[in-house]
Order: sequence, then C-alpha cells, then structure tokens
Amino acid sequence: MRNLTLLTDLYQLTMINGYFEKNIHEDVVVFDMFFRKNACNGGYTIVCGIDQFVEYIKNINFSDEDLKYLKSLNLFSDKFLTFLKDFKFTGDIYSVEEGTIMFPNEPILTVKAPLYQAQLIETALLTIVNFQSLIATKASRVCFAAQGDPVFEFGLRRAQGPDAGTYGARAAMIGGCNATANVLAGKLFDVPVVGTQAHSWVQKFDTELEAFEAYADIYPDKCLLLIDTYNVLNSGLPNAIKVFKNLREKGHKPLGIRLDSGDLHYLSKECKKALEEEGFTDISITASNDLDEHTISNLKSEGAAINSWGVGTKLITSADSPSLGGVYKLAASFNGDKIEPKIKLSEDPEKINNPGYKKVIRIYNEDNKAEADLIMLHDEKIDESKPLTVFHPVYTWKSKVFNNYTVKELHKPLFINGKCMYEHKPVMKIRDYVQNELNTLWDEYRRFSNPQTYKVDLSKDLWDLKNNMIDSKNFYNKSS
Amino acid sequence: MRNLTLLTDLYQLTMINGYFEKNIHEDVVVFDMFFRKNACNGGYTIVCGIDQFVEYIKNINFSDEDLKYLKSLNLFSDKFLTFLKDFKFTGDIYSVEEGTIMFPNEPILTVKAPLYQAQLIETALLTIVNFQSLIATKASRVCFAAQGDPVFEFGLRRAQGPDAGTYGARAAMIGGCNATANVLAGKLFDVPVVGTQAHSWVQKFDTELEAFEAYADIYPDKCLLLIDTYNVLNSGLPNAIKVFKNLREKGHKPLGIRLDSGDLHYLSKECKKALEEEGFTDISITASNDLDEHTISNLKSEGAAINSWGVGTKLITSADSPSLGGVYKLAASFNGDKIEPKIKLSEDPEKINNPGYKKVIRIYNEDNKAEADLIMLHDEKIDESKPLTVFHPVYTWKSKVFNNYTVKELHKPLFINGKCMYEHKPVMKIRDYVQNELNTLWDEYRRFSNPQTYKVDLSKDLWDLKNNMIDSKNFYNKSS
Repeated sequence: MRNLTLLTDLYQLTMINGYFEKNIHEDVVVFDMFFRKNACNGGYTIVCGIDQFVEYIKNINFSDEDLKYLKSLNLFSDKFLTFLKDFKFTGDIYSVEEGTIMFPNEPILTVKAPLYQAQLIETALLTIVNFQSLIATKASRVCFAAQGDPVFEFGLRRAQGPDAGTYGARAAMIGGCNATANVLAGKLFDVPVVGTQAHSWVQKFDTELEAFEAYADIYPDKCLLLIDTYNVLNSGLPNAIKVFKNLREKGHKPLGIRLDSGDLHYLSKECKKALEEEGFTDISITASNDLDEHTISNLKSEGAAINSWGVGTKLITSADSPSLGGVYKLAASFNGDKIEPKIKLSEDPEKINNPGYKKVIRIYNEDNKAEADLIMLHDEKIDESKPLTVFHPVYTWKSKVFNNYTVKELHKPLFINGKCMYEHKPVMKIRDYVQNELNTLWDEYRRFSNPQTYKVDLSKDLWDLKNNMIDSKNFYNKSS
Repeated sequence: MRNLTLLTDLYQLTMINGYFEKNIHEDVVVFDMFFRKNACNGGYTIVCGIDQFVEYIKNINFSDEDLKYLKSLNLFSDKFLTFLKDFKFTGDIYSVEEGTIMFPNEPILTVKAPLYQAQLIETALLTIVNFQSLIATKASRVCFAAQGDPVFEFGLRRAQGPDAGTYGARAAMIGGCNATANVLAGKLFDVPVVGTQAHSWVQKFDTELEAFEAYADIYPDKCLLLIDTYNVLNSGLPNAIKVFKNLREKGHKPLGIRLDSGDLHYLSKECKKALEEEGFTDISITASNDLDEHTISNLKSEGAAINSWGVGTKLITSADSPSLGGVYKLAASFNGDKIEPKIKLSEDPEKINNPGYKKVIRIYNEDNKAEADLIMLHDEKIDESKPLTVFHPVYTWKSKVFNNYTVKELHKPLFINGKCMYEHKPVMKIRDYVQNELNTLWDEYRRFSNPQTYKVDLSKDLWDLKNNMIDSKNFYNKSS
C-alpha cells in the first residue's frame, strides 16, 4: 500500500493547524459521509471502496519527507509539524458493509474522532469511496441490461489513470462483471481475467486466415477470434468458420467470435446464422464497441444475437455521469459527554445536512424486500413487536405504517478507539453480497429511466431536532 | 514509482505468448499512438503524461510474484515465463514534447521495437497519456474561459481515485491552472498549493463570527473566508467585513471571500458592492460550485464580480467528455531492413489508420502561428526554400500553397535502442511551454462551440501508399 497521507486538500491541514493553535483539536466530533444524488442518475448506489479506505487509515503516517515539504510551505509552526509526526488515528469509524446498497442523504460512513483526525481523512475517504461506488453502481446497471449474459470489463486504456483502471476493475467486479481484462487487477484482487487478441495480431500476419490459424494452433481450447480487422462478413466470418471447422475436426470446441465495430445488431445476426448453418450453435458472440447499459438494452430489445459483452470506456469512467458527489459533513461535536448537534444551512434545501450522531436502519417486508430506510439518532431503539410508522421528511402528511417487518441496523464498526475491527473480504465474496443486496430491491428502483424513489425517512426525534435547529439559525427573517 | 508491469490487458500477454510460440516476437514493428477526436469535443488536444510514461518504461520488470501469478492462469508455458523474466525495453520511442498541441490522426508517439515489447506497453501508454492529455486540455479550456483570472484545481475528492486526483492535478497545472488544493500533487510535482477553510471550520465554532475571527487570528495575512455556511448576505458577508476591518486596523491585508453555493452572479455583485463601500476594493472574490469552462464563460459574460475560480469535479473528471480515445495501432513491420506498411480497414472510414513509419511536421507562418500539419513518411524531406503545397486527404481538390513558412518536426526521441534520451522537465516549465504552444494557435481553434478544424494533411507519398493499400485490401467488391 502506498502512503497516501498527503492525499488531502491543503485546507484540511490549514484547518487542523488552526484547531491546534486554538487548542480545540482534541475535541471529539462526528462527521458523516453521504451523497445527495444516486450514482449514474439511478435509483440506488452500491457502496464500494471500504477495503481501500481501511488500508488508508491504517497507513496514515507523515514521513520526514512529508513534514519537510509541509514546512517549506511556510504555513505551519514547528510545534504543529512535530505534532503531526505522531499522527495516528485513535477514533471510531462506523460504516455499512462494502457492497451495501444505499440511498441519498443516508450516512454511509460515520467518523467519531478527535477533530484533527476526523478532518484530515475527509479527502482520501471521498476520493476512494466516491469513485469505487460510482463504478460498482455503473457495473450493476450494465449487468442488469445484459440480463444474465456475461459482462467483461475492458476499460483500462480509457480509465482516468492507473488507479482508476485497477480499482475501477475491482469495483466493476463487485458490481457484477464476470471478468476483467486488467491483469494487475486480476493479481491484486484475485478475480478472473479475460482476453484473446487485438487487431494488431491479425495485421501482423500476411493474411487474416493465417492469423486465425496461428491463434487456433496456440490456443485450440480458448479460441475466440476478432473478426472485424478487414471486413466482417466477407473476410472475418468465413475465415473464422474455416478455422473453427478445423478445430472441431481435431476435437476442440471453438469459443466464439468478437465484433468490435460496425452495426452490431445486423452483424451479430448474420454471424449467428452463418455459424449455425455450419453447426456451431453453442458459441459465444461477443460485442465490444462503446457499450453501456443503454446501448446493451437497445441491442437486447432489437434482438441482436450477442450473448457476451465487453464493456470499456463508458463503464470504467461512468461516462454519462462520471462522478458521485459524496460529501463529508460535521454533524455533531462532543462537549465532554454532551452532544452538540451541528448543521450547515443553505439556500438550497437539499444541501442542509442531518444533524446529530446518527444511525440508519432498513425495514424489510416478509419477502425480504427492502421497504424503507430510517435515519435515527444513535441511541434510539425500535420495538419490532409494534407497528412502525414512518413519514416523509418534507411532505410529512405522507406516512406509512409497517406491521409485519424486520429491521436491520446498517452500520458496523470499522475502527473502535483506533483499533481495526474490519475483516478483509475477497472481492468475489463482496460480489456475492451485492447480488443478495440487489435481490432485496424491487425492479422499479433499478430501471434506467425515471426510477422510483426509495423511501428514506427521518425518525421523529431527528426530524424535530433538525427543524428546531433550522428555525433557530434561520437568517432569512433577520435584518443584516 | 510503483511497478506497473502488469498494468496491461490480458490479450497483450496472450498475443505476446503467441508471437513467442510462432517465433516472430523479435520482428521489429512500428506502432503509432494517436486519437481520432480531440479531447473535450474541442479544436485541439494538449499532450500530457509523457514523463510518467517514460518512468513506466524504465521500470518494467516482471517480479517473481508477477510471474507466479501469470503461471497460475494456465495460459503460458514455463519457457515463455522465463523469457518474460528478462524483459527489458530495447527499442526506439519518438514522441512530441510534453505539452505539445496535437490534432486528430497525428501520431503523437511512435514505438519502433521488437513486436513483443511494442505490444506489451500499449495499455499503460494509453492509460497514462489519454487521461493526462484529457485533463490538461480541459484545464486549458477552463483557463481560457477565466480570461486571465487565477484558476485553482479543487477536484481531488471527486477524482476517479488517488492517481486521477494527483496526476489530474499535474495535468491541470500543465494546462494552465495556477495552483491545486492537492497536497500530494504539490509535493510530487513542486507546484503551488492553495486552501483555506471548509464549512466544518465555521460550524465547529459557536458562531460564524467567532470562526472567522479565529481564522484571521491564525492566518492574518492569508485570510480568505468562506461565507456561505449559513447565509451569505445576512451573515457571512457582514461577519467577513467586520473581521476584515479588524485586520486592516492591525495592518494586515485581507485576501478575500469564497462563495460555494447559491446564485454566484448575484451574490458576487452584492459582495463586491458591500466590500467596496467599506474600502476593500482590491480583494479576491472566489467562486467554487460545479464550475467548468461553460459556466465560467456565462458568469463572465453576465458580468459576475468573480475574479478567482475554484474548479473541482468538472475539471478533474472532464465531466462532459470524460475520456480521450487515444489508440495504438500497428503501422509497419520490418522484414530485415525492408518496411512493410500495415493497415486496418473499417466500414467506418475514420477508423482506417495511416500506414507506414511516419513523422509529423508543423507549418508556421511569419507570425509564428501554426497553419497546418503534415503527416509524412519517415524519410521524406521538405525544402523550405520552395513553396509547399498541401491538400485535404479526403477532398483532395482542397489544397493550399505556403510561400513564407517555416516547418518544425514534432517528434523527439524518448528512447533509442532502449536508452532513455528524455530529460525530465519540471511541471511549471511544461506549463510555460503549453502557454507558448497555445499562443501559436488562432483563437478560432480554441472556442468552445464549433471550433474551426485545424488542417492535418498527408504528404503525397503517404496518401498514395494509403490509398493503394486500401484498394488492394478492399473486400467490398469481393464475393464471400
């Protein structure tokens, strides 16, 4: 693991230095990470990147070189730099399990720690979790569109740098992809890797047929041929069929063909027909040209004969929505044992945060479908033997009573008093967990166009606290 | 530098293994990196990331752990894995200087090397150079919109992972930004860093005024205050003015204010008026809320009183166009000393590559403005004492004759016979070079809406070669 201690915004350090100078840096505070809009303009978001965030926390360490650099900025006292030298995270962090599906305004991760520690880690937390959550969510959408066909992550060359390609591949696997082309990701995360040949292989040989024959010779049982280097129907397809027949005669089963350009709908159907005429009925037809959940949906509904999808640029960058706007906001400050809730107002009501030290529970019906989430104060309890009433936080007359339900608290400790409570899980296990999570979700939250809004309500106590704070801080009615 | 040797697509390795099995892996070949459309849908692209690519090449090394992993895939022979163990780049790489402005279809980097080496490096080259070129170009657009106002890179928390935030900050500086908030980027690349306080600073204190006073106390000469935590005009602004007056009385010059929400046009003008009434005429008004070149242009043309810009998400992800589609195509193969040019056809004429071992020259007029580029075969020469005629590669009747002109060859060696010829340049020097490059460009190539298309023509020899190859490989008129 690289040391990412300086992977932070300068203002975190100028603020910490300020807290230190004012001697309030040890005050214990509560920060929440949450997002205001779902990833990919969709109906849900898969939380991803927790494993890397934990590694980051464990490895925070200002090296002598880091401190020398900070000193060169002429912003910090020597006393403060000496203080940073011993920096170690000693607080509590609670988080939903990696792979959990979350919704706008819910704390996905809560930090309760001395102010200077909680402040430092903001930027790296957001950088790591925003990106991986975005790509995991995007991948789950692409896989949903593919309706069970295998989806391969092919985006490394268009990723926003090496990390984006590698941690993006991790997130794509967690979101549901079946394999990645990224070898480094395969090694680091123990996930399946996939790949055959590029156009350059075909070009290197004097003829396309020679190129195909050479590939089949070396990989007789893994022979998937790229057939669009010169002309799909007049060259690539007939050459592939020749080679596949030879393989079959020698007792090998050809894997299939890949189309990387042209009209994928038309070409795939023509290919399928020609392949079936020659008896190749159980063969993979992979497509891979600028695909995303929308193009795959269209190809599926038009009846394209594609049964395997290589998805690159638009998955690894989440091209039509390339960021998740996760934020990290101060929610409370402890004065000894007394909690002082904190709020940030805004002319935009969506930007007002939920104050206080909180938790989130999810309400399930008898079929294990998620019905609603409730954000509550940390010490509130629910009696599952009684009906539970929830109400909309803005249109408060919209309420719902649950009778037969179970609840689950979503947060688990990652760190307690600086001690790591988190247990590393293999990526393929997190991928399984995501599939279970998605199964708890009604399809109306998963559709691409105008997904239904999942209910995220506030407990009565939290709602009262928030509205009282807004009233008391309201500057609109005050003269300036 | 991390070892990125496995940062590649699996098919590179399956192909190399294939070349090795067929004993053609030592054949010397030529690959070109180029893009087909400019970054950000604009009229030009700034090439960036060359420094990191050179480091990557120097550090290629299959570790024992890497080889053990590759063995576990059951795709490669032990003989091949032993061969990889000694992998070292021994070829030639030519590239434009980092920061050079380039246009579609021009080779920006050409690799002439044994096939197995040239093939391995494709993915990392594209990952590194595509992303940094994208962000450098985006930054140059944002700075163009800001018309000389300082632009600060604030995007780390929304970047696509740690590398994207850090190398993205590097690229943003090269593209013209004045400073970054990313401390790690500041340290790694010796570029200015900037940052003051977040909403959490203001929230932590009992009142906004106390928070401002505390900040001014600690940073009396670097006092820039974030004034939108509660209410800009009724709270933040009057509190900031109080604090600024105190600072002034003590002989300090306040830096300014920052607006991070609301109607930036209206609020900035109200703030400017109130500040000027109190005699603060030379003060920074920074805005920072979901900005890009388009919103900045609009705010500028509406007369907003903003004179400093913090640009985050939409710069660091190039949100409206989050990838540059750079590709890497086989252009030639050497048979001893004889060059065999290579071409990839496509039903989409834009996807047909320029064959052969090539170079690019740029034609300047007497005012040092770039007039056109010419892609030529590697051994062609231009006699600058004679008029030079260029013609459009598709509409060949569109031609132009240059009389008073100079030409520059754009490629320089990065590696010759594996020896590094590249001299590391500081980021701020590359930034200067970019400003010079931009000055050679007419403004019509820089505008955001329908930029003029810069002329990129082929020499007569290259044009003939390409069209003869297309004719000879044309499968459209052949029966299948």
